[in-house]
Amino acid sequence: METYPSVLLEKAVGEFSKLPGIGRKTALRLVLHVLRQPVGEAEAFADAVLHVRKDIKYCSVCHNISDDDVCPICADARRDRSTICVVENVQDVMAIENTQQYNGLYHVLGGVISPMDGVGPGDLQIESLVQRVKDNDDVKEIILALSSTMEGDTTNFYIHRQLAPLHVKVTMIARGISVGNDLEYTDEVTLGRSIVNRTLMD
Amino acid sequence: METYPSVLLEKAVGEFSKLPGIGRKTALRLVLHVLRQPVGEAEAFADAVLHVRKDIKYCSVCHNISDDDVCPICADARRDRSTICVVENVQDVMAIENTQQYNGLYHVLGGVISPMDGVGPGDLQIESLVQRVKDNDDVKEIILALSSTMEGDTTNFYIHRQLAPLHVKVTMIARGISVGNDLEYTDEVTLGRSIVNRTLMD
Repeated sequence: METYPSVLLEKAVGEFSKLPGIGRKTALRLVLHVLRQPVGEAEAFADAVLHVRKDIKYCSVCHNISDDDVCPICADARRDRSTICVVENVQDVMAIENTQQYNGLYHVLGGVISPMDGVGPGDLQIESLVQRVKDNDDVKEIILALSSTMEGDTTNFYIHRQLAPLHVKVTMIARGISVGNDLEYTDEVTLGRSIVNRTLMD
Repeated sequence: METYPSVLLEKAVGEFSKLPGIGRKTALRLVLHVLRQPVGEAEAFADAVLHVRKDIKYCSVCHNISDDDVCPICADARRDRSTICVVENVQDVMAIENTQQYNGLYHVLGGVISPMDGVGPGDLQIESLVQRVKDNDDVKEIILALSSTMEGDTTNFYIHRQLAPLHVKVTMIARGISVGNDLEYTDEVTLGRSIVNRTLMD
């Protein structure tokens, strides 16, 4: 165990090391960086953290992060309203948008079903997806674009079953993605192709 | 360039990506982690950042980070007051303390001389080191423990020259082969120096 020369320093290192992927050594490096910056920089940083946590909103339609009640994608009249792409989180929306291969809408689940982490279907935006399909007759296709993991597959299967009575076409992005890889780290060409080559679930 | 669905989110990502070694993708991951935490956690984090930046003090003797005017090491009566180990920063103090091989005092320079980064001798705690040696007759040895780089060597040389008139012994930490390293993979300069500076076995 490291001994820090200051309680203040140790507390700040403790807070930084709570962030995912940040160990105590990296945390110390980050805190020392903050110490070298002008006070205004530290204030701007702390302010952005508080502000984003307290004031962030979620789109009432697709549940993506948004500054307004309805996000720019859902509000965009040029997007194809017959297709909804179901993703895990905001990174996945950004990754798919970057491919420029998709012009439909999204539905952000907020995670995948993972009994190990205590995440059940009720913790995700699945019921609101079903309701969205029920309420909008122009929705013709649901593209499931979840990570190619056990949890992703379980969630795909669960959603497929929930949507089965609704006579909407349910497709899945092509498994061009390497098994075990996270969606957000897939290169754009593979990801783009996997959307074009989506396969019909039957 | 990524397009973020929210200005708030983009701002927070921008702030996190100013930290050393944090790219925009990692920054986004950190911000989304903050969003998943309770508001109290985000407040504790922001508070620790502000608090450490605004209220941190430096030891008036050795310039290490400290909660009091004099740090615990300088205040410790059991430490050997005849030896001062000169280091670059607080991490180096912690690293040497962890070895449990050193019982003297420290002097934290706050960096090394680096004309490329605009850091001259005046930006470092070198003059205060010279003054400290002048003021304390019981100081018998200065150990230079700076990084084995061009900048570290320059700083070593500069400090050595400044201390020359003071008749204090100036030593340098040994440069040699790291413990556990294969001889054949050690670089030539290090290997050469480890032969020249060989130590007597007794």
